[in-house]
Amino acid sequence: MIPTPTITELIKARKNLANYIHQTPVFQSTALNEMTGAQLFFKAENLQKMGAFKMRGAMYATLQLTKEEQQKGIATHSSGNFAQAMALSAKLLGIPAWAVMPSNAPQVKKAAVASYGATIIECEPTLEARETTLQKVVDQHQCTALHPYNDIDVILGNSTATQELLEQIDALDFIISPVGGGGLISGTALAAHYLSPKTKVIGAEPKLADDAFRSLQTGVIQPPLKPLTIADGLRTALGTITFQFIQQYVDEIKLAEEDEIIEAMRLIWERMKIIVEPSSAITLAIVLKNKDYFKNKRIGLILSGGNVDLGKLPF
Amino acid sequence: MIPTPTITELIKARKNLANYIHQTPVFQSTALNEMTGAQLFFKAENLQKMGAFKMRGAMYATLQLTKEEQQKGIATHSSGNFAQAMALSAKLLGIPAWAVMPSNAPQVKKAAVASYGATIIECEPTLEARETTLQKVVDQHQCTALHPYNDIDVILGNSTATQELLEQIDALDFIISPVGGGGLISGTALAAHYLSPKTKVIGAEPKLADDAFRSLQTGVIQPPLKPLTIADGLRTALGTITFQFIQQYVDEIKLAEEDEIIEAMRLIWERMKIIVEPSSAITLAIVLKNKDYFKNKRIGLILSGGNVDLGKLPF
Repeated sequence: MIPTPTITELIKARKNLANYIHQTPVFQSTALNEMTGAQLFFKAENLQKMGAFKMRGAMYATLQLTKEEQQKGIATHSSGNFAQAMALSAKLLGIPAWAVMPSNAPQVKKAAVASYGATIIECEPTLEARETTLQKVVDQHQCTALHPYNDIDVILGNSTATQELLEQIDALDFIISPVGGGGLISGTALAAHYLSPKTKVIGAEPKLADDAFRSLQTGVIQPPLKPLTIADGLRTALGTITFQFIQQYVDEIKLAEEDEIIEAMRLIWERMKIIVEPSSAITLAIVLKNKDYFKNKRIGLILSGGNVDLGKLPF
Repeated sequence: MIPTPTITELIKARKNLANYIHQTPVFQSTALNEMTGAQLFFKAENLQKMGAFKMRGAMYATLQLTKEEQQKGIATHSSGNFAQAMALSAKLLGIPAWAVMPSNAPQVKKAAVASYGATIIECEPTLEARETTLQKVVDQHQCTALHPYNDIDVILGNSTATQELLEQIDALDFIISPVGGGGLISGTALAAHYLSPKTKVIGAEPKLADDAFRSLQTGVIQPPLKPLTIADGLRTALGTITFQFIQQYVDEIKLAEEDEIIEAMRLIWERMKIIVEPSSAITLAIVLKNKDYFKNKRIGLILSGGNVDLGKLPF
């Protein structure tokens, strides 16, 4: 068992990150409140630096390295957002960075990583190829590999989004957070555990990538299956650390279909005028799909990111 | 000559509107600052109620009516955003509303007007047809016609966006505001005139709808020409009142090409993760086109609205 980080560690993460990240706004929409019969509070991490919450975890993990480690540089493998986050973290600290990215990662994400000055190394879109390639990079440059989610410091960094949300909005009945590798929802659940223990934390997962749902049922980490969900940020498997925290601190995982995710994404774009990824829109899809369950409740929804390829929209 | 509204009237408008509109946020983008070499402050009226600044003017003009007039209802002709603003204003006050809309208005705008409970009456997409049809509606229902822009109360309502901006961000060298019928830039220029007289107000107009530019040159209101610009909110001609205020209080009008507007729109979507109309993105297009002129300056950009038909994106 990995020990649960203390409240002191969570608060320290928030304090140390303050100069490097945005405190993102929380939006409400009268139209979406009417449509769902609930009170929705959208935590807009799509407006975070580089367009996703991942900036929090990547930056915090990098800040924990020694000066010497920082100077040698950082590396990661990621389908997109975490690579951008690592690249921007490195840029802000003036250190080198290498991003191992699968060949099928969205072009807009590769371009963003490159624009932050990181070196991109492409590989086959399998977990094995990503890990092997990353190890080569680490061996060659003696740099530090950052794991996108299965890392206590990354999770502590991610927790700061929910720490902010719970300060911005009180008396939330639920917080709904997307589940990919589990790094965001682990941070979400830890923050709620300490700062708002009555708030239930719900994971939102695509039916086409219901590996976390099945992992909770079976008690063993399950791999995601093909075909691939449109929510490209949620295709990854859980890690050992995130799985443990999900088992301990997440109340439930609910699933959404692909068309429900796309419809929710369209609603957020049209009604709220903000750009979110399918991986974020799934939180609203879960509310729309379970209206009776969420009726009249105060619900925080973590909009995890907004890095979408505008040339490949589903509508 | 129409007398210029007093600072007292501007402040009264802001106070009376406070309960009916959002104070919208101001966003910055490190990436766009680097790209332009200027410091950009985006006033996000796309996050205003119903998705555009027009809510301010429509609501304020409606609030100026007597209770008796309000009960008979309000009507307008509009290509979209002002009709939505009128419809939502009527909904908030519980009074009837009629919207005369050209047959080529974006579907998403018609749907939004209908969703606010207003009655839509379609007409040919000419100014003459719109005015004739509106007069019929007024005669039939004895309601009050609201002009989308050529109206002192609408201009006063619009001025509140810039009143907020100048309180949120100080020492602006420029404010760039789109020019369609001139209602937004009139309010912008009046607010700057009183609250930040050193700030220069620049109008942003599509080259394909350069009627305000030509009107200033010739001293006579010029009609917009075909073909139609993609910035559908900027296709209208100036009014007598807005033309006068533009002559008196706007420093200059700068023009942008269609491809420059689309590129700026894409940059705002990709880099800022917010949805803006082409009519809003033109403000950034003007900065990108005149980098030397705006170098190192502090610039407020009014993002007028975000009501885009997602089924008809230019990229």
